[in-house]
Amino acid sequence: MSVKMSSSTSRIVQKYGGSSVATPELILKVANRIIETSKIGIEVVAVVSAMGSTTNKLISLAKRICGRPPDRELDMLVSTGEQASCALLAMAIQSLGGKAVSFTGSQVGIITDAAHTKARILKVEGHGILEALEKGFIVIVAGFQGMTDAFEITTLGRGGSDITAVALAAALNADVCEKLTDEDGVHTADPRKIPEARRLDALSYEEMLELSSLGAKVLHPRAVECAMNHGVKLHVRSSFHNEEGTWIKEEEAYMEQSPVCGLTYDVSEAKVSVLELPDKPGVAAKIFSALAAAQINVDVIVLNNTRGTITDLSFTLPKNDLDKALPILRELSGKEGYGAVTANTNIAKVSIVGAGMRSHPGVAARMFEALARSEVNSNLISTSEIKVSCVISDKDLDRALPSIYKEFDLDSVPEKRRISKSMEAKMPS
Amino acid sequence: MSVKMSSSTSRIVQKYGGSSVATPELILKVANRIIETSKIGIEVVAVVSAMGSTTNKLISLAKRICGRPPDRELDMLVSTGEQASCALLAMAIQSLGGKAVSFTGSQVGIITDAAHTKARILKVEGHGILEALEKGFIVIVAGFQGMTDAFEITTLGRGGSDITAVALAAALNADVCEKLTDEDGVHTADPRKIPEARRLDALSYEEMLELSSLGAKVLHPRAVECAMNHGVKLHVRSSFHNEEGTWIKEEEAYMEQSPVCGLTYDVSEAKVSVLELPDKPGVAAKIFSALAAAQINVDVIVLNNTRGTITDLSFTLPKNDLDKALPILRELSGKEGYGAVTANTNIAKVSIVGAGMRSHPGVAARMFEALARSEVNSNLISTSEIKVSCVISDKDLDRALPSIYKEFDLDSVPEKRRISKSMEAKMPS
Repeated sequence: MSVKMSSSTSRIVQKYGGSSVATPELILKVANRIIETSKIGIEVVAVVSAMGSTTNKLISLAKRICGRPPDRELDMLVSTGEQASCALLAMAIQSLGGKAVSFTGSQVGIITDAAHTKARILKVEGHGILEALEKGFIVIVAGFQGMTDAFEITTLGRGGSDITAVALAAALNADVCEKLTDEDGVHTADPRKIPEARRLDALSYEEMLELSSLGAKVLHPRAVECAMNHGVKLHVRSSFHNEEGTWIKEEEAYMEQSPVCGLTYDVSEAKVSVLELPDKPGVAAKIFSALAAAQINVDVIVLNNTRGTITDLSFTLPKNDLDKALPILRELSGKEGYGAVTANTNIAKVSIVGAGMRSHPGVAARMFEALARSEVNSNLISTSEIKVSCVISDKDLDRALPSIYKEFDLDSVPEKRRISKSMEAKMPS
Repeated sequence: MSVKMSSSTSRIVQKYGGSSVATPELILKVANRIIETSKIGIEVVAVVSAMGSTTNKLISLAKRICGRPPDRELDMLVSTGEQASCALLAMAIQSLGGKAVSFTGSQVGIITDAAHTKARILKVEGHGILEALEKGFIVIVAGFQGMTDAFEITTLGRGGSDITAVALAAALNADVCEKLTDEDGVHTADPRKIPEARRLDALSYEEMLELSSLGAKVLHPRAVECAMNHGVKLHVRSSFHNEEGTWIKEEEAYMEQSPVCGLTYDVSEAKVSVLELPDKPGVAAKIFSALAAAQINVDVIVLNNTRGTITDLSFTLPKNDLDKALPILRELSGKEGYGAVTANTNIAKVSIVGAGMRSHPGVAARMFEALARSEVNSNLISTSEIKVSCVISDKDLDRALPSIYKEFDLDSVPEKRRISKSMEAKMPS
């Protein structure tokens, strides 16, 4: 395999997910790809996830011992998965004649806060990486993990290995951070739901951030945010072949031709309502502070006052956090004299994203029309400058998606956005 | 379960092997035992091996990628086994209501040299352990692993977790280092070979060191040596029940009543001969230096000069090291003009050990007589102050063992050496 790479690229961070390193045979394939890249004179730092379903297996082992494993010990346990896969990848590279060395997150000084199982990276010290690169080594780093100032092992939560890769790319001044995946890029919609969905050649950070936040699994929003903050160019491409995938980078003029670049959805959230709140300042803040203190992120929020001084508050949050959120909300409600707290897990959030929305009024209206045409009702709606999200019943999802896809003619997006060989080439204005 | 413990014990290091933590259920059992010990006011530091066959599984995974995995990466890989088991044990203790925290070897500052896969502990910094004990935590430490000054993860080789436990006991000034195992102590011979073999109540460090070096699996000689050097009292006892096992400590007068305390054997070695050496000074040194440089330990050595100025050199070394040793020896032999290098893997080493040998002449002669009676031939013999080893053909092993056992009346040893309730009690002189 000869790997296509822009000629100006001299240092690259590649991220390989768990499915790319699920077996010894796949690890050898990845090793081969890395060696090919290294042979054309590019310094490679590869970040790997745990093999296949290792993380889930470790978690279920923990659950056989402890219904609710303590987060600190869970991090100790789960971080072994990436440590093992990065050692194996370094071995594979050596067995194919390359020079490689593996490091844990702790060893390279990925310093995080102490929020075990969902730690945030504070800084990347990068111990040993530059020295190893200078000596001609390919450097393999265990994704998903770091350590606190007090040498406690932490993990970064969902999308953690993506975040490791982007943070390393920023710290090492890499020319690009490649995410190698079993998809060949970012699509206008989920190809499993919309077969005609097409790969996008390029997206702005803002667009990718919205798509990721709204359910596109291919990149975690925290990774996109980190890339945006540090100007790290992302390239999402297939680990199976050699074609270019989707570039994510600063917004450029050419990107504005289409108001909507992608359609996405998310079924991982639940809708929660706190009823009969006094309609006065500070009530919502009290509720969201209590949830934030428990590290629960809240999304689409609607405060719905239909009865004068009494109001209902609805919002979405991850289904996984529901067991933690409901007792907190019910205790608060009891203490403050609010009404019932209800939850609905049968929801889906459908979103359209596009930087062009800013200059194309009426996008939200077209989305509601598309929903109405397919007889789908939406009870929570949230908009930003570059996205519109609607919360619908999950049973309506398969009806809603094609209708919206068609409304925005997403089939033709890739043509409009096609870019030439490399990001370094000039774009048509 | 109520754990019997001497009333003066206030801090203990316990070591649990892989078979004691092979399943979540067994881990919970171990957790329970630790909690019981902790409840009677004893500070517990527990050192654990990897679960069951984890280490072997990891090594065979590595071998599917790389015929001969590089040692540094092998350490990265294999050390995950103990990290996982110590996290799981800490979880188990917490799930049963105890307070526990787990640490890797790196985290507690078990500093080793850089001889990957067989590193030696240089010092134990013990970061965080005393602080955690003071706060009432049970401390779980991953066995078998450490790190170099350069933050490289190392493993300690065979018996590594035993060594970790003894080194921690020394560093923490523990009253005793307990090895919990599926046997109930140290026996006069291998019970699988000699059904009437009996548990010994006490042994001196020197005796245990010889027994371990000569094949007794229950404690690794490096662990015994470390205990001897630091005066750490060892207690080998069953993890399944609560009875006392075998104490290993300073030699005392009572121990001298029997010339031989144990019979042991080892089938893990091969016999190597370098033929036709010039019989002049420095030749053997050259050969053994070359092997030592490759970290290969040589045991029973016989220089057999039957032909004037030409001599043959035979010795034993671990079968595992044979693939590494033979090319080294053959290269040296070719360069120096020595003769052929031969190897025989079908050997067994049978040994008797006892501090009393020093004051009982004729022990070696009795051993040879016992071998002769069972028509077993020995071609390499090695003696020390407190042991006699004979290398025999492995097919003769099952004939040789009962004959020697009977010759030294090992059946009656435990009675002679029986000691009362606790090591702290006065011994009969």
